[in-house]
Amino acid sequence: MIRYKITFAYDGTNFNGFQRQPKQRTVEGVLTSKINIMAKKPQKTIEVFGSGRTDSGVHALAQVAHFDFPFDLPTEAIYRGLNSMLPLDMEVLKVEKVSDTFHARYDVSGKRYMYRADLGEFSNPFKRNYTGHWKFPVDVDKVRTALTDLIGQHDFSSFVASGSTAKSNVRTIYDAKCFYDEAENEINIEFYGNGFLYNMVRIMVGVAMEIGAGTRPEHDVLRLFDVKDRDQARLTMPASGLYLKKVYYEGDDPEHPTKLPKF
Amino acid sequence: MIRYKITFAYDGTNFNGFQRQPKQRTVEGVLTSKINIMAKKPQKTIEVFGSGRTDSGVHALAQVAHFDFPFDLPTEAIYRGLNSMLPLDMEVLKVEKVSDTFHARYDVSGKRYMYRADLGEFSNPFKRNYTGHWKFPVDVDKVRTALTDLIGQHDFSSFVASGSTAKSNVRTIYDAKCFYDEAENEINIEFYGNGFLYNMVRIMVGVAMEIGAGTRPEHDVLRLFDVKDRDQARLTMPASGLYLKKVYYEGDDPEHPTKLPKF
Repeated sequence: MIRYKITFAYDGTNFNGFQRQPKQRTVEGVLTSKINIMAKKPQKTIEVFGSGRTDSGVHALAQVAHFDFPFDLPTEAIYRGLNSMLPLDMEVLKVEKVSDTFHARYDVSGKRYMYRADLGEFSNPFKRNYTGHWKFPVDVDKVRTALTDLIGQHDFSSFVASGSTAKSNVRTIYDAKCFYDEAENEINIEFYGNGFLYNMVRIMVGVAMEIGAGTRPEHDVLRLFDVKDRDQARLTMPASGLYLKKVYYEGDDPEHPTKLPKF
Repeated sequence: MIRYKITFAYDGTNFNGFQRQPKQRTVEGVLTSKINIMAKKPQKTIEVFGSGRTDSGVHALAQVAHFDFPFDLPTEAIYRGLNSMLPLDMEVLKVEKVSDTFHARYDVSGKRYMYRADLGEFSNPFKRNYTGHWKFPVDVDKVRTALTDLIGQHDFSSFVASGSTAKSNVRTIYDAKCFYDEAENEINIEFYGNGFLYNMVRIMVGVAMEIGAGTRPEHDVLRLFDVKDRDQARLTMPASGLYLKKVYYEGDDPEHPTKLPKF
């Protein structure tokens, strides 16, 4: 068996999330089915291991997965074969052969997420599936303050949705930044960290936007770290604005800081 | 009755075109239903008159329509009322009171259409509903030559789909241009003319792209004008790449040339 690592993008709008489920159209389900067709339907189904799940409606600009394939095909053949079979809302960007010790999920060293918040008064018809709509005035500097407070190693218990199966809620955010895109009238927020809990990005964005809108005190993030109470973080921003932008692995990660930034 | 002119955008993906049809979700159908709810369901249904139809999957950045409303409401009230009721894939951009001689369709002096052709090797998941995919190499200068040949007053019989009910196929194209968007790897084509026949823009783009790809001679447009044979224009580009960008009316049209451009 040859282990392949694939990097791929998908528009999450018409997927019921990542994880394979009976009778649901999921990212893992579609990928698994096409890979097994390429392998001429082996007796034992080839399993696909993603770097982690994304929720229904969440997009990926560069998700990563691995699988073991019975034939030693050139990466170019896997690339073309898969892309010719995949539906139009999914595209393989890169295929690599990797050692059979590589694991797309266990070897993750970091992830980068992006959130697009549309500030238009009414929801833009062309952005409804690709942004989260935020119709209140926002002070971008205050959003930035909130994001800076989120950087570092913290217990994110206030920022995790119920249903999380993580043993620990401690995670490290290496970088969190935002900019206002004037042409699009959007706030664009990015988080880079060693891992993210269930709904954590969407909850963090909601808190940062409320701080930006002035409905929360400027340093409320610090209080939320202390109280460890998800109910006090309230809002979960819509899935439609969230993009998994990059998955980092040991060795291929030049942006990974060796020390936490001072702040 | 007060006559209102509205300018509105829609994402055509989930509409069965513009024109009202029983049991189909259409732009006109949705608009008519919401306007009649706003008017408290008058005995005689308020009709909505669009500047013209768009096909299933075709988008509008600024479509125009008019309707007669029983109450003299401020334009701001119509604007907010409609936007709060419309589905997320439609947005009213502007509301104006107009004289009751104004007609959104009969008074049109020109229209501007835009076409986005995605040149990626495989269809981009995020663009599948917003571009037409063109996977062959294209010489942008040749596309430009084809577009220049299309400018002027011509019989567009080779560029109209069967099913057209137009009495004459003579139309004038004031301007036709394209540029290559390197960041998006797209060719963006625009037509500005006094009117467009059924599927005419999508057929013209197909011919221009084939000329750009070298599968048609450089000045084949001139031959197609002569032969007046739609079969020889072959391809109709996908609806997903087409946008109605602007509708022009007498008086509000600074771009409308008084004479045809020299070429």
